[in-house]
Amino acid sequence: MSFAFEVTILGCSSATPTSKRFPTAQLLNMAERFFLIDCGEGTQIQLRRYHIRFQRINHIFISHLHGDHYLGLMGLLSSFHLLGRKTKLNIYHPEGLKEIIDIQLNYSGTVFNYEIEWHVHPETDGIIFEDTLLTVETIKLDHRIPCRGFIFREKQRPFTLDREKTDKHRVPVALFAEIKKGNDITLEDGTVIPNKELTKGRPRPRSYAFCSDTRFSASVTRAVKGVDLLYHEATFLHEMIDRAEKTFHSTAKEAGITAKEAGVKQLLIGHYSVRYLDLRPLLEEAKSEFPETLLAEEGKKFSIAP
Amino acid sequence: MSFAFEVTILGCSSATPTSKRFPTAQLLNMAERFFLIDCGEGTQIQLRRYHIRFQRINHIFISHLHGDHYLGLMGLLSSFHLLGRKTKLNIYHPEGLKEIIDIQLNYSGTVFNYEIEWHVHPETDGIIFEDTLLTVETIKLDHRIPCRGFIFREKQRPFTLDREKTDKHRVPVALFAEIKKGNDITLEDGTVIPNKELTKGRPRPRSYAFCSDTRFSASVTRAVKGVDLLYHEATFLHEMIDRAEKTFHSTAKEAGITAKEAGVKQLLIGHYSVRYLDLRPLLEEAKSEFPETLLAEEGKKFSIAP
Repeated sequence: MSFAFEVTILGCSSATPTSKRFPTAQLLNMAERFFLIDCGEGTQIQLRRYHIRFQRINHIFISHLHGDHYLGLMGLLSSFHLLGRKTKLNIYHPEGLKEIIDIQLNYSGTVFNYEIEWHVHPETDGIIFEDTLLTVETIKLDHRIPCRGFIFREKQRPFTLDREKTDKHRVPVALFAEIKKGNDITLEDGTVIPNKELTKGRPRPRSYAFCSDTRFSASVTRAVKGVDLLYHEATFLHEMIDRAEKTFHSTAKEAGITAKEAGVKQLLIGHYSVRYLDLRPLLEEAKSEFPETLLAEEGKKFSIAP
Repeated sequence: MSFAFEVTILGCSSATPTSKRFPTAQLLNMAERFFLIDCGEGTQIQLRRYHIRFQRINHIFISHLHGDHYLGLMGLLSSFHLLGRKTKLNIYHPEGLKEIIDIQLNYSGTVFNYEIEWHVHPETDGIIFEDTLLTVETIKLDHRIPCRGFIFREKQRPFTLDREKTDKHRVPVALFAEIKKGNDITLEDGTVIPNKELTKGRPRPRSYAFCSDTRFSASVTRAVKGVDLLYHEATFLHEMIDRAEKTFHSTAKEAGITAKEAGVKQLLIGHYSVRYLDLRPLLEEAKSEFPETLLAEEGKKFSIAP
């Protein structure tokens, strides 16, 4: 059995929103656990537009404190409150975000009806969230202010029993746990049955890396090595490489090179400069380096196959 | 000659935005001077949607620090910066707003390329802006946190010369200024000509009052006495009067009574609770008290005739 592992793009514009493009926000559905990644202005409007029941979001990851990545947060938190939320919310965030929210709560005379647990990003890369199904790692990106990417990795799941075969071999139920772990088993009569004869194998753990704002960076390439789907910003065409470097952003070509060198399965580009009304040249440029490139656009969903 | 005096509704939802309704924001065009009144989340998106060249806004008035009235400001200020603004911006605001913006600028490592002049609301009602054409007064509203309304009043303009008549009487140009002021004049031969024989009269000064969030209040009624157009919140139907009082909001009926008692020309209601998908019952309820009631809706423009 396979769970959903799907990213919905809520916004993929850089810096200034337009009437059609929203700033960065994504929703990751991992087995009906909903993770919000960045929260630009208007995120709650987009959540409503795409009929996402947003009280189901219990974890919000903010990459950095440029407005196009977090200005929708205060409004979303307020709406949670006004709509009666009681469930605890976890926010994984750069230094400063709690202070920004607290000062606004103070002036608005508001105390939320639900608890927020604040998890400030650690100094070093590593796992910041873990549950039975997945881990979330943070990785350092190379931007003008402290900025972090996130890698969502499905955990290795147990081997799936092949019940026809366990029945055939009359394997006692007591041994099922061992089989699911991948071990061979020994029956009471001493017969050893190799694991692969009793299972249908196990699902491949999937992974999604989110690299919001970053310069082209060898350390980012190393960090995202081999993920299934890499979201990497592609703010500019490569003809604007000077501007990209100056503003600590990447070009579409650089996103493609990162994907190629990291050996990922697919690349998803986004965070487009508002100067690009037509996004196809960005897609073509990234594809020239890495053919398996996809274009993030508001409302699009990207599923990672098991 | 008459100037524009026109309000464009950018958002008229209360509290939580929906995919169709935005939180409070209005643009007042007074003779091509553009005043932004409140700035809920998504205001810059709405400005773009309605093709408003938003760099022409030089004055922003914020009523209070509930999120649905100011959360779009940080994004708008950032976009001004990113789009190359150089012109000084004036912000008229409650205590605390500058602190909220400054802390965000600090963490985003941003220094705007343009100057902001911060005008904190005074303790008492009075004029907070004046130029050759109009004044803006602030008035105290009755809300859960400090909240201010604004009255935009066109200044009395000069009398319009009737050039046919001044020619007929051979009035020297040197006396025109006196005529425009409304004075009678005396020609060199001693003839006195009454002002009304030399002018076409003068345009009536128009006025617009904005009352964002307030309980039904006698002092608000007094303050907005006789304005041409009164925007008054109408968050609830009167059947929810208890909730209205508890949350320091008004019902549509109360908005109508305010308009009637203040003797305004027209009433414009807004700030609707998200529970009302169909706004007609709110309009009908206000009209039952005050027939000249209009319904604010995103994108609608309301002109005040001279």
